[in-house]
Amino acid sequence: MTQTVKPVKTGLREVSRSVPRLEGVQKVTGAIEYIHHLRLPGMLYGKIVRSTVAHANIVSIDAAAARELPGVHAVITGEDVLKIVPSPYYGPAFHDQPVLAIGKVHHVGEPVAVVLATDPHVAEDGADLVVVEYDELEPVFDEVAAAQPGAPIVHEELKPAGTFADLKHLKGKKHTNIALDAMVRHGDIERGFAMADHVFEDTFKSGQVMHTPLEPFVSLAETRSGKELTIHTASQSPSFVRMEVARMLGWQENKVRVRAAFLGGGFGAKLYIKLEALVAVLALIVRRPVRIGLTMEEQFYTITKHGTTVRMKTGVKNDGTIVARQVMTWWNGGAFADIGPRVTQKSGFTAAGPYDIEHVSLDSVAVYTNLPPAGAFRGFGIPQLVWAYESQADIIARKLGMDPVEFRLKNVLRDGDEHATGTIMSNAKVVECVESVARMIGWDKPFDRGTGVIRRGRGIAVGLKASISPTTSVALVTVAADGSCTLAISTVDMGQGSDTAMAQVAAETLGIRTESINVVHSDTDVTPYDMATLGSRSTYHMGNAVRLAADDARNQLLALAATYLGVPAETCVCKDGVISTSEGKSMTFKELFVARFGMQAGNVVGTGSFEPPYAKPDMTTGQSKNVTPFWMIGATAVEITVDTETGRITVDKCVTAGDVGRAINPAIVERQLNGAAIMAIGSSISEVMIFENGQVVNASLADYKIPSFLDIPKHIQAELIQDPHPTAPYGAKGVGESGSFGPTPAIANALEDACGVRVREMPLLPERVLRAIREAAGTPLESE
Amino acid sequence: MTQTVKPVKTGLREVSRSVPRLEGVQKVTGAIEYIHHLRLPGMLYGKIVRSTVAHANIVSIDAAAARELPGVHAVITGEDVLKIVPSPYYGPAFHDQPVLAIGKVHHVGEPVAVVLATDPHVAEDGADLVVVEYDELEPVFDEVAAAQPGAPIVHEELKPAGTFADLKHLKGKKHTNIALDAMVRHGDIERGFAMADHVFEDTFKSGQVMHTPLEPFVSLAETRSGKELTIHTASQSPSFVRMEVARMLGWQENKVRVRAAFLGGGFGAKLYIKLEALVAVLALIVRRPVRIGLTMEEQFYTITKHGTTVRMKTGVKNDGTIVARQVMTWWNGGAFADIGPRVTQKSGFTAAGPYDIEHVSLDSVAVYTNLPPAGAFRGFGIPQLVWAYESQADIIARKLGMDPVEFRLKNVLRDGDEHATGTIMSNAKVVECVESVARMIGWDKPFDRGTGVIRRGRGIAVGLKASISPTTSVALVTVAADGSCTLAISTVDMGQGSDTAMAQVAAETLGIRTESINVVHSDTDVTPYDMATLGSRSTYHMGNAVRLAADDARNQLLALAATYLGVPAETCVCKDGVISTSEGKSMTFKELFVARFGMQAGNVVGTGSFEPPYAKPDMTTGQSKNVTPFWMIGATAVEITVDTETGRITVDKCVTAGDVGRAINPAIVERQLNGAAIMAIGSSISEVMIFENGQVVNASLADYKIPSFLDIPKHIQAELIQDPHPTAPYGAKGVGESGSFGPTPAIANALEDACGVRVREMPLLPERVLRAIREAAGTPLESE
Repeated sequence: MTQTVKPVKTGLREVSRSVPRLEGVQKVTGAIEYIHHLRLPGMLYGKIVRSTVAHANIVSIDAAAARELPGVHAVITGEDVLKIVPSPYYGPAFHDQPVLAIGKVHHVGEPVAVVLATDPHVAEDGADLVVVEYDELEPVFDEVAAAQPGAPIVHEELKPAGTFADLKHLKGKKHTNIALDAMVRHGDIERGFAMADHVFEDTFKSGQVMHTPLEPFVSLAETRSGKELTIHTASQSPSFVRMEVARMLGWQENKVRVRAAFLGGGFGAKLYIKLEALVAVLALIVRRPVRIGLTMEEQFYTITKHGTTVRMKTGVKNDGTIVARQVMTWWNGGAFADIGPRVTQKSGFTAAGPYDIEHVSLDSVAVYTNLPPAGAFRGFGIPQLVWAYESQADIIARKLGMDPVEFRLKNVLRDGDEHATGTIMSNAKVVECVESVARMIGWDKPFDRGTGVIRRGRGIAVGLKASISPTTSVALVTVAADGSCTLAISTVDMGQGSDTAMAQVAAETLGIRTESINVVHSDTDVTPYDMATLGSRSTYHMGNAVRLAADDARNQLLALAATYLGVPAETCVCKDGVISTSEGKSMTFKELFVARFGMQAGNVVGTGSFEPPYAKPDMTTGQSKNVTPFWMIGATAVEITVDTETGRITVDKCVTAGDVGRAINPAIVERQLNGAAIMAIGSSISEVMIFENGQVVNASLADYKIPSFLDIPKHIQAELIQDPHPTAPYGAKGVGESGSFGPTPAIANALEDACGVRVREMPLLPERVLRAIREAAGTPLESE
Repeated sequence: MTQTVKPVKTGLREVSRSVPRLEGVQKVTGAIEYIHHLRLPGMLYGKIVRSTVAHANIVSIDAAAARELPGVHAVITGEDVLKIVPSPYYGPAFHDQPVLAIGKVHHVGEPVAVVLATDPHVAEDGADLVVVEYDELEPVFDEVAAAQPGAPIVHEELKPAGTFADLKHLKGKKHTNIALDAMVRHGDIERGFAMADHVFEDTFKSGQVMHTPLEPFVSLAETRSGKELTIHTASQSPSFVRMEVARMLGWQENKVRVRAAFLGGGFGAKLYIKLEALVAVLALIVRRPVRIGLTMEEQFYTITKHGTTVRMKTGVKNDGTIVARQVMTWWNGGAFADIGPRVTQKSGFTAAGPYDIEHVSLDSVAVYTNLPPAGAFRGFGIPQLVWAYESQADIIARKLGMDPVEFRLKNVLRDGDEHATGTIMSNAKVVECVESVARMIGWDKPFDRGTGVIRRGRGIAVGLKASISPTTSVALVTVAADGSCTLAISTVDMGQGSDTAMAQVAAETLGIRTESINVVHSDTDVTPYDMATLGSRSTYHMGNAVRLAADDARNQLLALAATYLGVPAETCVCKDGVISTSEGKSMTFKELFVARFGMQAGNVVGTGSFEPPYAKPDMTTGQSKNVTPFWMIGATAVEITVDTETGRITVDKCVTAGDVGRAINPAIVERQLNGAAIMAIGSSISEVMIFENGQVVNASLADYKIPSFLDIPKHIQAELIQDPHPTAPYGAKGVGESGSFGPTPAIANALEDACGVRVREMPLLPERVLRAIREAAGTPLESE
């Protein structure tokens, strides 16, 4: 790997510095806290009995044999849950997911019962003894088929959560699998196509993928009185868990305490409710602490990345100007909506890509099927769309005989252009990102194109993503009497380096060193509200809250110092824990506290609360003056080798450019871009969940291939495009997903560059590639 | 027991309401969290090897046999501690107490080594195998003897902590056992005595007493990296523990996290550092979690109530006017100062009592001896002084032929009078307290005086105590998006009901119900600084901080509501979680959050920081314009039965009046007054530590007699004198100690009333009483 991060001269001391991770040593010595390691006194282990069928009514559950197994404490079913929770359904968008199946099952793997035992192996043995009788119903798996009239119905009635205004009209709607239909209308799409010299129509499909956090899902719940709960959970969204569990139980929020620790990866999997509602209810039923941790196999049935079908029709002038684009996207939401409707809407409105197109019509539907539920996955739907529009970009460029880079640069949105939503673009370095990856890969230079059965090719792609709004982050900065500082935030550090970055923002603002700051992890009783750690929002949203909180603390310190130093506060500066005046008088923070409190005592507490500016889109046109607080831009170029005898693709080079606003911690940001690219390479060439009647047939890491160290491109490189964003903390935008946008279409484009074949279904598994090559060569493989 | 709390009409909804304890159900069901129950994974149990001699140099420590015992993980001595902590001494006033003995031991029971094992019984067996060889030094036990020149010296050199300005001049002072000499000079004492018609001189002694919290001392420490520590401890002062352990280790405060839970009693024992520095250092040495919990026997060697000698000389006119008082008090601080010097100074300046005396001279000395260390004990030295001045008050009244109540009312300080320190009295209901107990006991009514060998008598006493300053409390009030509220404070609820009282203050201020509030316990990473839970300071000091924090939160909510309701904030009111205007428009807190944050999201965080007004006393005269934020006044009257054949005293009636300002929770306040009285009855008639060569010979609850339920007076009653204090939260003053002032002298006075004998040494054990009776009868008992 090569390092390309250039130091930026900023006048800043802490921001723009590649501070080593604050938790680094604890991580590499194995001392760090993960919820997975937590054991509570008197704890029971729960093993979930899961549905073996995709769609069925439950006829009976026979748990007698399990209950008789020595060591089994209890077997709990949906019936038991109903006794203490009248409506035990949860979900961020729809209240559609039961704590345990009630009456019917909607997908293979749905939790039907839980066996509780003091020994996890006994719980497992007990689960094997539970016999469930099903009356099977016709299932539906394909997202396009499920959206058609007459398809089998997954949920009889839609139950929107009321959280999102654009779901309210769906309340009580029956006999449909469509959980949301979002649209954007800009210009006049028919006129657009009429103006076009060429019209391209393609359908791009992508399969379900698993997030594969290496720390499995795990949650523990305990209650002292049966009227309060503490939930310890590997969650990206403790504030949401608190709110949703309290809502489901009919309790006040402050009766539910949710603690998280470091996560061993999240990638969107550990958002909203996963095991939390279940362990909470179990703890209330049995009045003992309950722990459930999943096996890797079970994770495949818990949450996935949406499989999608994208039908894209694009009108282009002879000179390469895109004049019209119509996109229809079906999102396979699986059996429970989770945050799928939001993926549908938020990604949906960017389906025209980072292009300045006059006439746009976008439709995006969230569809229930009888597969495991799909939710947020790094990129929040954007990679599936970039896969489509950047594949088609190359198809068009190739057809028009234009260079792919030239074609993109001709059409990309530039600051001041109007996006399809009506929002005027600003601080979106699309051009710079494209030019950066072209330069890094040596786009205009010749390269080894391979010989014989080995062919080599290059591809490029660029995507954009909106950030989230409305949304809120709150932070507390506490300065102790010795001047040391503690930052209390509900942001969850799941490997992305948020502790370090947030400490840098606080340190810069307070004039102290990042390493001296103590970051306190999410505990909803004490760390304030944060919507969730998702969508690359922490740096911008929580970063702003932290900056405001640190500003507040600093201003209190400066005001105090000013009274003792006898000068106006605005003439004082904070540096290295010392407040000084232009005349050279100074006080340390500690001296200030002694002066203020009569001894080394007290705290200064700064608070910060941030919500970004936002203008709600019109529901029927998707038009809004301000759909996003900032744009994330990511471009990728790859150079690949294709073994035309096996269809195997090797990514040799992968270069990424991200518009990061300003990098708080350049080394971490670079790793985020490269890490996202590696993850996207996995779902481009090797990772996909294979279903048979709703059953995942490759639900193990032996059969489901995530990139290993040997699969990382030999040459991997990231460039940070730094253009400080005016509303961001020190100009820093979120960047955790930008590297994931481009790899899939870049590889598909490189495949065509190498072998002349175009594959429209993701991932580019060897067999699929080989079939395409042999098909093109006129020597098709026999079908499976 | 009778209930005499009268409801006070206040217009307040939450304050002045006897809300049942928020934690009550958890306590009675055994579900509540105590640190004593905590077990950490991989934890080692530590057993302390303690000095068997009172004063000696350590010649050698042979731990070979202990180390060979199977299951013993390590044996740690002072030498090991020195390897990682260059100066392993701690203490709030003097840095005199080593983590483990280094070179010499200063009292029987001083920790010399610790045996660590995975099994606590193995640790205990190991401790028995450690052989320590001592070279004994001459010890000194009596506080008066130890203060004389030529006495054996406990510490070669004084090492004041630097926390208190009045100790700084002692730095480096050698060859003295006097750790502090505090004084008050008011008027001209010689002239005063010259004016007097009668001069009384008495010496009153009191013995060491143990706090006897029923949850023993227990602390656990763990470290992940060796560069940070988490200490879980049954402590009344987590903020101090953090600061002091960090100081000792040379670390930033924010590297030490200190968590407390509910305490099973504290009474001053669990203040400052007890086991915390030891477990911290042990965890750093062995890199595993370490737990040490004490046996009841060990507690007797850990911290005690000061034994004292009070020499009191009082000049009185024939009409009963006290004109001069000179007091010399020796405080037996034991081997380590702990907070003793502060007891010496703070109680010392009140030694003239609640009386308006023109000429006053007070000296108060903290003395090192070779007994176990003495520290804060409910009342902070005041009961020892009240014992002296209220015994003498009766001696004087009796001599002058005055009624004891009349004598007191003639002399007591009234608002506007000048206290011996020069502070003008205000909001101190001394008269009302005296009159209240006189009324309750029926002072002017005849009563059964007994017959034959059974004699009955009555006594009365009144005392006053200053509160603490300078001192700081900080509070956070967080309102969640559903309107529910969490209060984060470092006040420790040790049975005094602070959680409930603080929630009442917050609820009153926010216009919500107390029961809906969640109180978060002390955790120094997240709950803000509070000096400590001591000296009846929480209600006033933390109460003010909570009120300020709740005001801040309410004002933020009102300001928000005003913008949505279109009226000025000051015209809005908060009640039952609803903000409404005079025109009848209203919004719930939850609606407000949705309006503000676009969804049910966000927090409003209010912060409050409080330090009371204070004027530092002059060191040589003790004069100050404002020595205390408020005065605590407590009066007691008792009716007792004396069995003149055995000397056994039974307290039949005990009535207490406390000036409480305003009772936040009248039922809890009443129980505080009665509880303090019961505790004081114990140290008046049955409790005392008996030493032989520094060894406690009655160090078990079989031999050391705390009051049982059967010892509680059949008639026990408390009256709350309510006069809202202007600078207190809703007028509420601290009251946890006021009931402890009077019982000892009231019982001694009742003894003289019953039998005509005056005992000047506390406690009034049967043998001591019997000796006095037999002496007076001319038939003395043989000496022991």
